Amino acid sequence: MNDVVKIGIAGLGTIGSGVIKSLLRNQSDLEKKYKFKFEISGISASSKNKERSFNASSFVWFDSPIDLARDSNIDLIIELIGGDSGIAYDLAIEAIKNKKGFITANKALISSHGKELSRLSEENNSFIGYEAAVAGGIPIIKTLRSGLVLDQIKGVYGILNGTSNFILSKMSEENKSFEDALSEAQILGYAEADPSFDINGLDVAHKLSIINSLCFAEFPSIESINVKGIEAILTLDHKYAKELGYNIKLTASSFSDGGSLRKEVSPTLVEMGSSLGRVSGVSNVVCINTDYNGTIILEGEGAGEGPTSTSVLSDIVDYSSNNKQYLFNKKFADLLDSKCNNSVIDRCYYLRVFLVDQKGAMSNLTSILGKNGISIDQVIQRGGVHLKDEKNFTPVIMITHPIDSESIDSAFAELINTDLISMDPIFLPVLKDNL
Amino acid sequence: MNDVVKIGIAGLGTIGSGVIKSLLRNQSDLEKKYKFKFEISGISASSKNKERSFNASSFVWFDSPIDLARDSNIDLIIELIGGDSGIAYDLAIEAIKNKKGFITANKALISSHGKELSRLSEENNSFIGYEAAVAGGIPIIKTLRSGLVLDQIKGVYGILNGTSNFILSKMSEENKSFEDALSEAQILGYAEADPSFDINGLDVAHKLSIINSLCFAEFPSIESINVKGIEAILTLDHKYAKELGYNIKLTASSFSDGGSLRKEVSPTLVEMGSSLGRVSGVSNVVCINTDYNGTIILEGEGAGEGPTSTSVLSDIVDYSSNNKQYLFNKKFADLLDSKCNNSVIDRCYYLRVFLVDQKGAMSNLTSILGKNGISIDQVIQRGGVHLKDEKNFTPVIMITHPIDSESIDSAFAELINTDLISMDPIFLPVLKDNL
Repeated sequence: MNDVVKIGIAGLGTIGSGVIKSLLRNQSDLEKKYKFKFEISGISASSKNKERSFNASSFVWFDSPIDLARDSNIDLIIELIGGDSGIAYDLAIEAIKNKKGFITANKALISSHGKELSRLSEENNSFIGYEAAVAGGIPIIKTLRSGLVLDQIKGVYGILNGTSNFILSKMSEENKSFEDALSEAQILGYAEADPSFDINGLDVAHKLSIINSLCFAEFPSIESINVKGIEAILTLDHKYAKELGYNIKLTASSFSDGGSLRKEVSPTLVEMGSSLGRVSGVSNVVCINTDYNGTIILEGEGAGEGPTSTSVLSDIVDYSSNNKQYLFNKKFADLLDSKCNNSVIDRCYYLRVFLVDQKGAMSNLTSILGKNGISIDQVIQRGGVHLKDEKNFTPVIMITHPIDSESIDSAFAELINTDLISMDPIFLPVLKDNL
Repeated sequence: MNDVVKIGIAGLGTIGSGVIKSLLRNQSDLEKKYKFKFEISGISASSKNKERSFNASSFVWFDSPIDLARDSNIDLIIELIGGDSGIAYDLAIEAIKNKKGFITANKALISSHGKELSRLSEENNSFIGYEAAVAGGIPIIKTLRSGLVLDQIKGVYGILNGTSNFILSKMSEENKSFEDALSEAQILGYAEADPSFDINGLDVAHKLSIINSLCFAEFPSIESINVKGIEAILTLDHKYAKELGYNIKLTASSFSDGGSLRKEVSPTLVEMGSSLGRVSGVSNVVCINTDYNGTIILEGEGAGEGPTSTSVLSDIVDYSSNNKQYLFNKKFADLLDSKCNNSVIDRCYYLRVFLVDQKGAMSNLTSILGKNGISIDQVIQRGGVHLKDEKNFTPVIMITHPIDSESIDSAFAELINTDLISMDPIFLPVLKDNL
């Protein structure tokens, strides 16, 4: 490493520009606190002449980001391009092979190529930092990497996507429709023009897969996670959930369940006052449930220029202190391929159907549920509430007694083949613990 | 440093014994994850033959802990004796002067001797770890030391004492008296036989002074903190606070207020659903309010064998990775002596008096308040509620409009010199933000 760390930055959108401003603003503090001197030795992005919030002309421009990783003068590459393949991936591989430090905010990259990156970084003794990839300004990666959570981790759960949490909060608190809440998120810059990954749970799954690697010594894999998005949640579901004392949140959770892991991303009913239930807007929260250290809860802003830049800077400080840890806490040879395991301990579910206004419908519905082993704890059905376009169907809300997920799946399969209901029913797990 | 780190442990109470068991339990994991090999080369405590939860006879016994720090074979001293002077202090100085690593759970030591320890550790290039000294299992020191919170910290606030929070929670949730709640805490092992420091705010002040050093580049000093304990809080105060939507918590806070710092430990009314208001039992919470990273909230168990051992182990990992940081983030020469500053921005106060049942009493009370610039937003006075021993006095609860603390102090001084009230009045700040 040079005496002065030479940094190359690829990707100069909001985050990339934010990192540069943050580096410059903190330059003297980094030197004082960490004896860390740096120089921004090269920058690169797809468009050279775009207007930016910092003066790009005062830095050396590289037309190809890959050339940053090939420049013998550069020690540390910061990748803020995004995407799990293409340039971001090529840049990572080139940087590591050239034994440069590599810092990224790219969860898709770390998740999709974790196995390869773990092996390569070990072979090349390279530093990889990815604090910014999960839960923005919350120091979750550092907490999980730095030995603070030793001993057995029993489970980890949280809210890891600010955009979807903003949408669900708006629907719940202001009675907005999904569409209105989404377009408000887009206007405020919280959601991309194509918000699919935020909404269908894939963004959360990438993040959870990384957390799983650190907690449970496995290679990251979204395939081993049961993923459900928030597309099917209606404003009316929030109304009934609140009546029952719950908020609906898109939760990520992994629990150790008799030797194997149950991993899930799903809209979930959580108690209103609980650590998950009360997190509103674009905030994130992560709870780590340990054997010897109780439960640690970390909460903060999930994304944005400030938090993401702060996380990238903390990785730079780690790099500068020569803090070389294994990418996922253990060496490549000690990590396992992750396994699917959707068997869960029995839990309660929230069921919402639009039931046909017809004699015997309720009896037929409960009979199908009963056949599948599902018994009902609470029911809400009110007259006068109908779907706009289908006047003959009334919402029926049920909370089941604890039951396994296979029974739920088989009841679902049976229900959608009847004329009893309009639209697919939704089944959401209910977390009754004070998570 | 030896290839195998030789550890000496002084103090073998619950925490000391817990650390030894935790080290042994995690031995192979520490080796795998951090390439860290250790040996417990010496132990010491006041009584050699006391029964302990581990087999003390399998380790080398030192009659004097100071000899651990003088043993050329030992690299790292772990001090779990406690107390801000005496053996713990002597051991710290001896260890650092002998260029050994030093890890402690002793907040009083770090707080009272911070200035000397900062200078000595720098002169001797020694590692000092104290994660366990503040908020048990919450990684607050690491978060504040490791660059995660770069940029300006505007304020820091939290609940830092599990014992007092347990007592306040029991009074509030189960209508217990202070005495009953305290003796329950003692039976459960949450409170010492002499619980003074937990109750009078001094324990919290020590912890806050350490946090202040890390956040605001000053030497720790409890003298610069305005400290009030929970002794005067009655069960009835909780009842009225709840009626108004608040919980009463012993909070620690430091806010940057126009260049100088306002530092306070005080029972405070916090909104029930807020980050501080909802923390019940022996849990702790710390909120860090930053310019660029939003507010980060860390919550977890505040004390006990498991969390404290985990924190000590995380320091050992830091030591092993040769992670030498300045004790309080900046070098000795860049730290300032801390200054008192009790001027606060105006805020609302909760006032409780026992007012004499006499014509004109309320008018006299409000007139005294009015003379001191205090105007009233809400009043609760109910017939039929009296102090057990003084039947002629009725509790009156008021919430004031925002006002400075000097006006409160002068109204207090005036009130206690009248015959209007029985017992001293209490004024508690009200935090209206969703902290």
